[in-house]
This record gives sequence, C-alpha cells and structure tokens, in this order.
Amino acid sequence: MQRYKLTIEYDGKFFCGWQRQNGVPSVQQTIEEAVYAFCKQKTFVYGAGRTDAGVHALGQVAHVDLEINAEPFKVADALNFYLKNKGVVILKSEAVSSDFHARFSATSRSYIYQIMNRRAPLAIKEGRAWHVIQSLDVQKMQEAAQCFVGLHDFNSFRSIRCQAKSSTRLINSFEVRQLDSIIELKVKSKSFLHNQVRVMTGSLKLVGEGKWTKEDIEQALLSKHRTAGGPTAPPHGLYFASIEY
Amino acid sequence: MQRYKLTIEYDGKFFCGWQRQNGVPSVQQTIEEAVYAFCKQKTFVYGAGRTDAGVHALGQVAHVDLEINAEPFKVADALNFYLKNKGVVILKSEAVSSDFHARFSATSRSYIYQIMNRRAPLAIKEGRAWHVIQSLDVQKMQEAAQCFVGLHDFNSFRSIRCQAKSSTRLINSFEVRQLDSIIELKVKSKSFLHNQVRVMTGSLKLVGEGKWTKEDIEQALLSKHRTAGGPTAPPHGLYFASIEY
Repeated sequence: MQRYKLTIEYDGKFFCGWQRQNGVPSVQQTIEEAVYAFCKQKTFVYGAGRTDAGVHALGQVAHVDLEINAEPFKVADALNFYLKNKGVVILKSEAVSSDFHARFSATSRSYIYQIMNRRAPLAIKEGRAWHVIQSLDVQKMQEAAQCFVGLHDFNSFRSIRCQAKSSTRLINSFEVRQLDSIIELKVKSKSFLHNQVRVMTGSLKLVGEGKWTKEDIEQALLSKHRTAGGPTAPPHGLYFASIEY
Repeated sequence: MQRYKLTIEYDGKFFCGWQRQNGVPSVQQTIEEAVYAFCKQKTFVYGAGRTDAGVHALGQVAHVDLEINAEPFKVADALNFYLKNKGVVILKSEAVSSDFHARFSATSRSYIYQIMNRRAPLAIKEGRAWHVIQSLDVQKMQEAAQCFVGLHDFNSFRSIRCQAKSSTRLINSFEVRQLDSIIELKVKSKSFLHNQVRVMTGSLKLVGEGKWTKEDIEQALLSKHRTAGGPTAPPHGLYFASIEY
C-alpha cells in the first residue's frame, strides 16, 4: 500500500459538493470512480474539507491508499485521463507516509471569495463570482474583516446545520482587496465551521453597502446566535484555495 | 435617432464569432435580436472588430442607432434583460454623436491571450485559456515579442483568408508576463490582421519551448509569407480586451 496526497482543482457547478451522496455527482465519488477505472481498486478518497454544492476548489487536498506502487506523476496523469471533461483535475500527486491525513494533518486552510461588483450581469465570470450591483466600500469591508481575526466564538457565523461541537475558531488573517470590478476576500484559519466563510462574506457585504458597521460585526460575534449574523453568501463565489501541512 | 456606444463582454464558447452568419448564433445577431425585443426596431449593430468563433471579449465596442431616446443606462439594462443567460452582456451604454463609428473611430485595440502552462488539464479555466504542458520560458517570449513592436509587414502572421489589402501594421506594445501558472500576452495596435494575434502567440509559444529563437521571429517577419510564421494558437485563449477612441 502506498498513500498518495492529491491536490485537486474543480468547478463547483458540476457537483453536489465534495461528499459522496446517493444519486448526485460528488467530487469524491467522481475521483473514486477514476481510481477504480485506473487500478480496479474500490477505495475511499479522504478530502481535507467538505465543500458544498457549487463551491469551487483551486487546491483541495485528499489522500488515497493504492495497492499499486506507481510514480506519483503517473497517478495524476492516469486519474486525469479518466476525469476528462468531468470538471475536476488532479493538479499534483505526491507519495506520502501512511501517517499523513488530508483532513487531520492540515495546519491551515485558505478560502477565497470573489464578488463581481458592477451593474452589468456576468458573462465571462458567470457561475464563478457573486454578482453584487450596489457599489461596495472595500476599505470599510477590509476594516470590518479584522474583527474576525483572532480567537472568537463564531456561532452567529455558521450554518444552523453545522455539527461541530465547538464554535470557537482562530482566524489567522482576513484580507479584502479590489481588482478592477472584482472584490476578493481571502481568509485563513486552521479550520472553519460549516458555511462560516459564506456567512462572514454575506455580513461584510452588508458593511460594504453601508447597512452594517464594524460595530455590528463585533456585536454579532458577541451575540453567539445565528440570527445575529448576516446572510449566507451564495456558493458559486467561493473557492477552496489552498491547504498547508 | 440617437447613436449609442455599447461596451460588451462575451464568452466566446457560445458563439460562431462576432459576425452574423446563417443558422449559427453570432454575437452581432444576438444583440440585434435583443434590440428588437427591446424597441421593436430592426437594426444593425456595428462592432469594432470581428472576433472569430470561440474568441472572448472583455470590452468589445459596438454602436447602434435607436429611434427611441432612452437614458444610456436604461438601454444597457433593457438589453441585458433580453440577453439573460445568452453569454453576452452590455457593460456600458453611452450616448454618442452620429459621427462616432465603433470600427473607424478606434485609435487602438488591445488583445489579451492567456496560456495555462502546467501539466494538469484545466477545470476552472477550461475553454478560457490555451493549455500548454511543456514549460515555457517567459523571459525569452517577452524578448522575442519585442520583434513585433513597431511598423512591420505581418504577411507571415495572418490568416491566408485575411482580406486586408495591406499587411503592414504598427504594433504599439507587446507584453508577456507570468501570473502563477498563467502566461498572459497583451498586445496593442491601431488594428490587427485576421488571426494576427493568434499567429504571433503560436510563434511565441515556439520561442518559449526553445524550438524558435528571437532571430526566427525576425526571419519570419522578413519572409512575408504565411508558411514562415508559426502555427495559429487556438481561439479560446484569446480575449478582445479593450478599444480606445
């Protein structure tokens, strides 16, 4: 048995999310089927994070144990052959020791959220960014985003279906910057709660619109109740960007 | 009659190109149909440049004469309503004088070509960049690109179907830069020959691979025959970026 670390890119629009579900195409199942097509081995592909339906990945990481012992680049090439035109590709494959775990060995995760802030609808970035018409104040969003940095209880900023026992998380950094019409939010933490990035983004959008202030973000954190947080931003603006080990 | 200048974004994969053709969806016809749906006027939409099938636009410009006299932003909003989910949007509409011509008033045009230079196939950028596996030397491409800058006969670097009488063009600037795995070529000129940007790109790719040198580019320019130029890069990496007036 050889454990392989896979770095994975996917277009969220083709999938019901990372996790295997009956009757709908998941990223996990799609890769497991490619593994089976490649080496006739029924196996489990463990991901670093379970992205929701519509969420994209630029650098999701997973691990898989293979009975064959192939050179890492050949594993990536073979899987990409079977993944052709399925909206998911293996960017890199590395041989790792059997104590490497895609989820539990991760020391930090980075997400990017893209907002297209303009009046016109999207053609090129359709399905790849959240279209917000009202002009957002990026400076105020960046200032308010700093309220999330550090150790906080994020109970107001997670899905009510989130199953994590503790809602306390340490956010390492949160940057909001403008690139032409795109407002890009980049946030880093050891781990995130379910929908946490999308609820933080939906709340910062309220700050950008002038409906909320930085103090409203602080107040929402202190309330520790989902009704105090902002709305959940749509999935198609979110990218699981990278994972550090 | 009021003339409107329209700035237009489109995803080339939905179209046979800019120009109206029988039986296949063109950008021009799609916008003309939106104009008709909006104000029941059969009209002609004049574009600044005829992009080929698969080529994208970030800032194509066209003009159209409307019998109604509506505020420019309302023209854009109304057309976008009828263009919904068709892969083309009006970024901006401006009222202009009747001597403005999208094609003939242009003082310069800029194109961007994106190459994804990596081993893995594309998921997020599928259909939006040219996938080149062999590692390209960006520095050498940038140096060789400078051979194109200035006034030259580009007969070796245009489609054999190009109908322009003169093949002499003045290239204002040509920049090649790397952004992570993407190599972006940006070129500016008053006007371009048919396929000129794609043939220049295909030739610079040969330089990046080490198969051609800067001197081969110079030699190809002097030969003034299409067989001396490099191959035509595929359309889906090309973006009609902007037009100055």
